Amino acid sequence: MRVRITKLSNGIRVVSEKRKTVQTVSLGVWVGVGSRDETESLNGITHCLEHMLFKGTEKRSATDIAYEIEAVGGHLNAYTTRDNTLYYARVLKDDLPLAMDILSDILQYSRFDEKELEREKDVILQEIGQTNDTPDDIVFDNLQATAFKGQPLGRSILGTEENVEAFTSADLHQYLQNNYTSGNIVISAVGALDHNEMVRLVQEYFTSIPTGKPVQTDRAKFTGGRHLKRRKLDQIHLTYGWNGCSFDDDSYYPMQVYSTILGGGMSSRLFQEVREKRGLAYSVYSFASSHFDTGMFGIYAGTGPESAEKLTPVIRGEMEALATGLRAGEIDMAKAQLKAGLMMALEATTSRMEQLGRQLLIFDRIIPVEEMQEKVEAVGEEDVLQLASSIIEQKKTAFAAIGGKEIKDAAL
Amino acid sequence: MRVRITKLSNGIRVVSEKRKTVQTVSLGVWVGVGSRDETESLNGITHCLEHMLFKGTEKRSATDIAYEIEAVGGHLNAYTTRDNTLYYARVLKDDLPLAMDILSDILQYSRFDEKELEREKDVILQEIGQTNDTPDDIVFDNLQATAFKGQPLGRSILGTEENVEAFTSADLHQYLQNNYTSGNIVISAVGALDHNEMVRLVQEYFTSIPTGKPVQTDRAKFTGGRHLKRRKLDQIHLTYGWNGCSFDDDSYYPMQVYSTILGGGMSSRLFQEVREKRGLAYSVYSFASSHFDTGMFGIYAGTGPESAEKLTPVIRGEMEALATGLRAGEIDMAKAQLKAGLMMALEATTSRMEQLGRQLLIFDRIIPVEEMQEKVEAVGEEDVLQLASSIIEQKKTAFAAIGGKEIKDAAL
Repeated sequence: MRVRITKLSNGIRVVSEKRKTVQTVSLGVWVGVGSRDETESLNGITHCLEHMLFKGTEKRSATDIAYEIEAVGGHLNAYTTRDNTLYYARVLKDDLPLAMDILSDILQYSRFDEKELEREKDVILQEIGQTNDTPDDIVFDNLQATAFKGQPLGRSILGTEENVEAFTSADLHQYLQNNYTSGNIVISAVGALDHNEMVRLVQEYFTSIPTGKPVQTDRAKFTGGRHLKRRKLDQIHLTYGWNGCSFDDDSYYPMQVYSTILGGGMSSRLFQEVREKRGLAYSVYSFASSHFDTGMFGIYAGTGPESAEKLTPVIRGEMEALATGLRAGEIDMAKAQLKAGLMMALEATTSRMEQLGRQLLIFDRIIPVEEMQEKVEAVGEEDVLQLASSIIEQKKTAFAAIGGKEIKDAAL
Repeated sequence: MRVRITKLSNGIRVVSEKRKTVQTVSLGVWVGVGSRDETESLNGITHCLEHMLFKGTEKRSATDIAYEIEAVGGHLNAYTTRDNTLYYARVLKDDLPLAMDILSDILQYSRFDEKELEREKDVILQEIGQTNDTPDDIVFDNLQATAFKGQPLGRSILGTEENVEAFTSADLHQYLQNNYTSGNIVISAVGALDHNEMVRLVQEYFTSIPTGKPVQTDRAKFTGGRHLKRRKLDQIHLTYGWNGCSFDDDSYYPMQVYSTILGGGMSSRLFQEVREKRGLAYSVYSFASSHFDTGMFGIYAGTGPESAEKLTPVIRGEMEALATGLRAGEIDMAKAQLKAGLMMALEATTSRMEQLGRQLLIFDRIIPVEEMQEKVEAVGEEDVLQLASSIIEQKKTAFAAIGGKEIKDAAL
C-alpha cells in the first residue's frame, strides 16, 4: 500500500493508493461543503444538489448516467454530511476512465432541469418521511439540533420540507458555482490503478471546475438543551450529548480512548453494566463526533418504557465511576481496540478511499497509520481521567428522546 | 487467492483463503441450524442460544469473553438467520489462535447459567422492541409470515416474547447438543493465515463437538396471504412477495437476472419508473431470497400516504411490461452488474469468509467465481421472459404493509 498525492495547477488535489491484489477500484470526488455551510433558508440545498447531479448533464440524461455505469457492472452513489459531500463509484479496473468521465460530467455539466427538479423534490420528501419513521435515525437529528441550537451545525442534512419545496434551479446552480471550486475538491481512489494514469484522467476530464479556495465555514458552539418527542413506540430511544472536541484538539485521541472505555465495544463499561449486568438495553454505545472547530461526545440507548427511568442514573453512575479511576488493563484494552481498528479500516478499498479523501480535505495531508497509532499509544491514564471529569462537570448537556410518556422520566 | 478445504475425521469441515497483503484474519464458525429448524414453541431458541453462548463458559465469564478478545483489539459477534447461525471474529493475524480458542470455548463449554439467562432474556425482549420500532424491518417479518403461513420458515428469527420468556437452560443445552454437531459445522477463515496451521488449531480446540450429521430441515411451501398493520407513520411501507426458487433450481440465475432488471439498481425498471420518472419513493427495490427447498421473489417500496394507491399499479405495470419483452442491451447490463458484484464480493475479507462458509454448508463445495459468472452469462432472454410471465401469473401472492389507513388501498 503506497499513498501518492498530486496537487494540480488549478488546485484540485488527487490522492491514490494502489492495491496489487484487487481487480476493482473505488473512486471518490470529495467536495468540502456540507449542510453546515447553508443559511437557514437554504438548509437542505447541499443534499438536494447531491441528488440533482444525478438528474442529467448537457450530454447525458438521468437514465444515461444510470445505464452507462451499470452497463459495466459499476456502482455510482453519493452522500452528504454536515461537513462535506462525496460522489463515488466502484468499478472493475478497466472502467476507471468511464467512472472518471461520468463523475466529472455530473459535477461540471449538470443541467438542473426544472421538471427533473420537481420530481426529485418528491423523492427527497419521501426520504425525509423515511428518516422520520426510523426512531434511531431521527433522534440523532434531534440531539444535534439541541446540542447546537440555532446554528447551521444543528440543522438536519435533508433540510425542512418547506425549504426543499422552495429550491429553484437557479439556487442550485449558484450554490454549485460558489462551492464546487477547485480548492474545495479532493479526488481519491484506492484499488487496481496507476497514480500517474489517474492524474492524467483528472486533468483530461476535470477542465471546467471554477478556481477557488476552500469554503470558509462559520464556527459553531455547543449550547445543550432538551428535545422530547412523544410517539407510540415499543422502545424509548434516548440520546445524550456533551461538548466534544475538534479534529485537531489535544483531546482528540484521549476522547477516542475515553469513548472506547465508556461505550465502545462489548468490554465497555456501558455495555457491561447496562446490557450484560442489567439487561436494560439491546443497543447502548457512546460516540465522539468531531469537526474542524468543535465536536460532540454522545451516548445512545434504546430501552423499554418500564426501564426508562432506570437508564439515565445507570449511565450517569458509570460516567462518574469512570472519572474516579481506571481499572487495571482498561486503558491498554481500549488502545488495542483503536489501533487494531485503524489497521482493519485500511483493508477495505471503499472505506480507505473515504479516509484518504477526508484526511486530505481536513488536514491537507494523509496521516500515516503509524502516526495515528502512536498518538493513541501516547494517551495516558491522567488524560482520560481528566477528560472523564471535565465531561461530567459540564453545565450544558444535550438530551433528545423519542418514545412514550416515560421519556420525561429519563431526561438527563 | 487460493481456497483450501479440509474435512476432519470427526466431520467438521474447514475452509480457508489466504491473503498475502492483509494483516488481519476473519474467522467464522457456521452452524447449519436456523429459526426454520425450530418447533413453534421453541421459535426463537436458535437466536436465544446464539446470545447465551456469549454469557460464560466453564473457564470464562461473560466479561472474560469480551475482555480477552477486545484486549487484542479483536471483534467477536454472531448472527442467526432462518437457515443457520454464524459466530465470527476479526483479529490481527497473530491472534488467530486466541480467536479459535474463544470461539471453540463458547461453542463447546458454555454454562447457560440461569441468572445470566434471565438477564439475557431482557436483552432479547429489548431487541424485539427495537425491531418493532423499525417499520422497514418488521414489515419484512410480516411478509415472511404471510408468504410461508403457519410454517417454521414463516416465523421470525427473534421468536415471540412468550417463547423467549419460557426458555430454560435445559432447553438451550438440549438444542445445542442436538444441532451443534460435527457434520453441521463449517469453520471458515480469510486473511493472513496458513491453512495447515488453521486446521491444526481446529483439531487442537474443537475436541468436544458431538459427532452428527447435518440437520434435516422440513421443506416449506409458499402460501401467500396478506398482512396489513396500521401504525401512525410518515410513510407507508409496502412489501410484495411471490413464490421464488431454491439455491439449486434451474431458475436461480435467471431469477437473479430478472430481479436485477426489475429492481436491482439505478438502471432498473422500478427505480427508473417509480423513483426517477414519478418521484413516488426514495427506496424501491426487488430481491430474491433462496433456501435449499424454496425461495421468495419480493419487492419493497416506501411512499407517502397520498401515493399509496398509485404505487401498486405502477409496480404491477412494470412487471407486466417486463414480461412482454426486454429492451436492447438490458440483459447484458444486468449480467454485467451481477458478474462485477461477484468480483467485488471476493475482495472484502469478512464477506468472503461468510460466502465460503455458506457455500460449504449448502453445497458441500466452494463454487469458483468463474463458474458463477458462466452461469450468469448463460442466462438467455427467453429464460428471463418465461420467469417474468410465470411470476405475474402466480395465483398466490404475499403482501404486507405497515402505515396509516391508506395501506388498504395499496394491497396487491
